Amino acid sequence: MANPTAAMLVIGDEILSGRTQDTNSNHLATNLTEIGIDLREIRVVGDAPAQIITALNALRGQFDYVFTSGGIGPTHDDITADCIAKAFGIGISIRDDARAILASHYANRKDLNEMRLRMARIPDGATLIDNPVSKAPGFQVENVYVMAGVPAVFHAMLASILPTLIGGTPLLSFTVRIEQPEGTLAGPLAEIAAQHPDVAIGSYPFMQNGVYGSNLVARCPDPALLEIVAAKLQKLGTI
Amino acid sequence: MANPTAAMLVIGDEILSGRTQDTNSNHLATNLTEIGIDLREIRVVGDAPAQIITALNALRGQFDYVFTSGGIGPTHDDITADCIAKAFGIGISIRDDARAILASHYANRKDLNEMRLRMARIPDGATLIDNPVSKAPGFQVENVYVMAGVPAVFHAMLASILPTLIGGTPLLSFTVRIEQPEGTLAGPLAEIAAQHPDVAIGSYPFMQNGVYGSNLVARCPDPALLEIVAAKLQKLGTI
Repeated sequence: MANPTAAMLVIGDEILSGRTQDTNSNHLATNLTEIGIDLREIRVVGDAPAQIITALNALRGQFDYVFTSGGIGPTHDDITADCIAKAFGIGISIRDDARAILASHYANRKDLNEMRLRMARIPDGATLIDNPVSKAPGFQVENVYVMAGVPAVFHAMLASILPTLIGGTPLLSFTVRIEQPEGTLAGPLAEIAAQHPDVAIGSYPFMQNGVYGSNLVARCPDPALLEIVAAKLQKLGTI
Repeated sequence: MANPTAAMLVIGDEILSGRTQDTNSNHLATNLTEIGIDLREIRVVGDAPAQIITALNALRGQFDYVFTSGGIGPTHDDITADCIAKAFGIGISIRDDARAILASHYANRKDLNEMRLRMARIPDGATLIDNPVSKAPGFQVENVYVMAGVPAVFHAMLASILPTLIGGTPLLSFTVRIEQPEGTLAGPLAEIAAQHPDVAIGSYPFMQNGVYGSNLVARCPDPALLEIVAAKLQKLGTI
């Protein structure tokens, strides 16, 4: 059976302006690869309702899982929850369980103001996602998991949902670093790739201290097959 | 007049598996922001023709400029050029000018083998993009600029096309770092945002050494307007 598929939707003007380098996608990718969920697409869109809704509806229909990051804080530019509700055509309001989480967190600070209460706005029927870092929860609607953009919070939320995801066969990988340029290896590499259509073989060039080299990577779920291909890739280092 | 818009299409399994962190998007974003081109979307897709062609056709119809990175090297998994040709419905073949560039580079190495010649395959009618780092050119077809995935090469190619792009009014930005949590600032911040609909105001929370704080960012093309809003944001640090 084919592995489940996934997409990531990163929401935030600060990524598109270059102010912030997105690292949540890379963290998600690494974690999904380990449990055999194939991340097939990443999209980054701005803080614009039409863009968010269009992207979300395209991705949730196409992939088994969709993970979002960004836009669920207390400020006026945090519009993700409302956009998710609109994309699903469901209602959204301040929910008692989410409010209770915030209330216990802010109890001593008398600080649960109107803007912070925005973080308790949850689409109808959604399941909350635990946030051990800063309390304000994420949420899940059907196959869409809505999480925070701050990396520490995104990591914590992902850690709390990972055990609930249904994975597949983890992709195993083998990497060999060869100090020869890609163009020299490309011919024999293409032959190996043609001999093993079930193994994804990639070549990633590098240049270090004036030396051109290639990292050759083989990926497949079958350890025996991977071993055969790994041996062939290693031999390329001796040509 | 509104600024020109752009999208970035990152091509490569290695990004989606988590093996490699994409940094080209961030580099592009920073450079486009400086010349007043609004980067509106980033998509990352794998080394799969259907995905690349679908994404490319969606983006090139929607935005003024599309920039791609990845998949134009000499190995079997470098399929971007062929996908671009298919997306545009045009032919592709080894072109004399591209071959000449490679031939002069590899002259002394007698190394211009069949696989390296793949890098001279250019869609019909495309304009070459100079690659001062490793010679194999990128290319432009209509509003699509096809560049390498290796960051040093991507940067060099982008530098050679930047002067040819038609920019708009550069977005100016002002950032103030306030050591108060977002939730405390969110109310007054929303008021400022409502008073200045032409200024994009964002809030980016941080936690450092146990202190919750917010970076407040205002962005707009008008320096006088930005100054007014900047003064209001700075005042928030004193509440």
